Amino acid sequence: MATATSPHSLLLQKNPNILKNPTTHSNGFPVTSVRTNTNVDVKLISIKCAATTTPHIQDRPSAQTQSQDRVFNFAAGPATLPENVLRKAESELYNWRGSGMSVMEMSHRGKEFLSIIQKAEADLRALLDIPSEYAVLFLQGGATTQFAAIPLNLCKPDDPVDYLVTGSWGDKAFKEAQKFCKPKLIWSGKSEKYTKIPSFGELEKSPDARYLHICANETIHGVEFKDYPNPKNPNGILIADMSSNFCSKPVDVSKFGVIYAGAQKNVGPSGVTIVIIRKDLIGNAQGITPVMLDYKIHAENNSLYNTPPCYGIYMCGLVFEDLLEQGGLKEVEKKNKNKADVLYNAIDQSNGFYRCPVEKSVRSLMNVPFTLEKSELEAEFVKEAAKEKMIQLKGHRSVGGMRASIYNAMSLAGVEKLVAFMKDFQARHA
Amino acid sequence: MATATSPHSLLLQKNPNILKNPTTHSNGFPVTSVRTNTNVDVKLISIKCAATTTPHIQDRPSAQTQSQDRVFNFAAGPATLPENVLRKAESELYNWRGSGMSVMEMSHRGKEFLSIIQKAEADLRALLDIPSEYAVLFLQGGATTQFAAIPLNLCKPDDPVDYLVTGSWGDKAFKEAQKFCKPKLIWSGKSEKYTKIPSFGELEKSPDARYLHICANETIHGVEFKDYPNPKNPNGILIADMSSNFCSKPVDVSKFGVIYAGAQKNVGPSGVTIVIIRKDLIGNAQGITPVMLDYKIHAENNSLYNTPPCYGIYMCGLVFEDLLEQGGLKEVEKKNKNKADVLYNAIDQSNGFYRCPVEKSVRSLMNVPFTLEKSELEAEFVKEAAKEKMIQLKGHRSVGGMRASIYNAMSLAGVEKLVAFMKDFQARHA
Repeated sequence: MATATSPHSLLLQKNPNILKNPTTHSNGFPVTSVRTNTNVDVKLISIKCAATTTPHIQDRPSAQTQSQDRVFNFAAGPATLPENVLRKAESELYNWRGSGMSVMEMSHRGKEFLSIIQKAEADLRALLDIPSEYAVLFLQGGATTQFAAIPLNLCKPDDPVDYLVTGSWGDKAFKEAQKFCKPKLIWSGKSEKYTKIPSFGELEKSPDARYLHICANETIHGVEFKDYPNPKNPNGILIADMSSNFCSKPVDVSKFGVIYAGAQKNVGPSGVTIVIIRKDLIGNAQGITPVMLDYKIHAENNSLYNTPPCYGIYMCGLVFEDLLEQGGLKEVEKKNKNKADVLYNAIDQSNGFYRCPVEKSVRSLMNVPFTLEKSELEAEFVKEAAKEKMIQLKGHRSVGGMRASIYNAMSLAGVEKLVAFMKDFQARHA
Repeated sequence: MATATSPHSLLLQKNPNILKNPTTHSNGFPVTSVRTNTNVDVKLISIKCAATTTPHIQDRPSAQTQSQDRVFNFAAGPATLPENVLRKAESELYNWRGSGMSVMEMSHRGKEFLSIIQKAEADLRALLDIPSEYAVLFLQGGATTQFAAIPLNLCKPDDPVDYLVTGSWGDKAFKEAQKFCKPKLIWSGKSEKYTKIPSFGELEKSPDARYLHICANETIHGVEFKDYPNPKNPNGILIADMSSNFCSKPVDVSKFGVIYAGAQKNVGPSGVTIVIIRKDLIGNAQGITPVMLDYKIHAENNSLYNTPPCYGIYMCGLVFEDLLEQGGLKEVEKKNKNKADVLYNAIDQSNGFYRCPVEKSVRSLMNVPFTLEKSELEAEFVKEAAKEKMIQLKGHRSVGGMRASIYNAMSLAGVEKLVAFMKDFQARHA
């Protein structure tokens, strides 16, 4: 649908040979640049003149389109946001819906901002079908702050808890927990460079662990849980850091005691952390818990105990609205699976020129790490891609190689362009 | 200067009687609405068409002007921001300076964002003349998170520290510190409803206190330190929460060990906390300190240990730029003193119709609490003011009455309009 109107898709339709011979547009889309630039200018002006009105997101190009003045941003987070959401934010920045204020200027206790945060929560509850016995908290400090908040709120200092570590983030969570309880590392993929998830049968889970912690998607290593283990302790709960695949697909929230996520991958800018927690788990924080890390304080005050990151919450709300308008997370998951298939297939069909180290069954739909057989070409690959407006493809410094993060807001057109470039690059360097 | 071009100032120049008889514009400035609306439209269009360029802040109206579609926002925080800063943010939101990205989409480790955070720090150092032996950290969690971070980083559990409490925020800081060290309340203004600051001579400071903590400006009670006490312990340091008067006037940073502030009053949106700390104080955090509250981690990583609140830091940077262009904090302080004089004089010259409970010598330049002799009229006052586009004048729920927060970005025109309204209201209800 919307992809059909994407400048890139048009380019492909008009030139079926392009994927076979991408060099014809390797210098920045000469084929369509003039026409699309015109489109862009027209769009810009129409939007400007509506700057003090409040256009519906539907009036904006869908997340599958891309203006030519935009780069394709494959960053792992902060990451690309839906163009239509950015346009709406632009149109409302100076004067939010006739309030005479920017959202950045609003009292967090005023009726305007209350309407924003309440709608954001309602839309998120609709997206993830969050049961009423769960609280939704909009906090600060990133997932790294939750690495401490989780044990501080759910454990006494001597409580045993289990950590299943499938990448760097899970490992950081495990190490931070050592300050506040007795975490056990029940499995680590480190010796295999974090390319696997074990079969749940072979896990040596503690019978009395207060919780079992996982990182649902490892941003750096590209390892994603496709289903979830259960704690051995019948009273134990499952806790997941979903920072890098939050709202990328439907999730059965009722399987978890706590889900937490930094917003800056799939749902907004950095500076907002979302915690979804079963209400009966709230209220048992250790005495040394800083008040800002105590879930009870935030739950009792509807995330308004102190001044929340108001503008970031507003942006998340615009993204939630957009995800609902796309048809909800089932539709979003379809798009994400399609994008990931296109990219992983290109890697697997490159006769080893490109390689993804991650075991196929647990490859992430969000973060795709890959290496070049001729590793000496990797710097050149990243440099040439950047020349073609595909940026942030360098792998994390801890693993090297390349990484393409293809979150919700990365269009199929962006992935198609990357794949076309990869084939061209291979043709020129094979 | 700039005020002369303010619609409101023009209004006053053309109609010297207006302050005596404000009812002539009590329905929303009929006198100038057409002309200024035209000005506004012209300005809007010119800005729209420049939306993908990067206009200098100087091209924008100064903070002393106000477009007619804006309200005068007297909120205590989040609070009004400079109109020209909002216009610049609007023009750059979709595509920051030709990068093809919004600032909200940038990797925090990419060259674009690094240039933003480095310039923000450099400009803040210039504004406050911060010595090189001090680190500047851009963090999350608000001042309330610092209430815990301060003792966790600077004390052992048994260390004595002193708290001088002149309002609700200082009291919250004192209570939070009880979790992490041995704080002593050396003075509290609570029994006098936080309307005073004691003479420093009468303070019973601890000879061995690691630090002396103050809240430099109490947002709720409107009490502001005009000079600062010294710790009794020669090795002790002075620590100030400057959330609500940060960058409102010059400060001798070298007098302090730590200065911290939430950004959402004078320098940006909510979600950014700025910590200025003497480097030799870093590196002694207690073992139970969550990694995100450890100053050492943030100092070693230039505030990029985890993903910082990038967009908020960008906005702070735009405000710092604007403050420098206004001539720096000496000029800003002059404007703030003038605005405060206009408002406090109106209160003091009302023959008791309006009252400010705060002792004159310590009245805040930022937050002006006042009550009505006829308290039954207060709700009506707030309601009528809102009708005239002056919002958020209701006092904090804990103290009642009214409160006008007149931070850096509140124009003289806004204060003049409030004073005109106050005189009119008094004339109609005396």
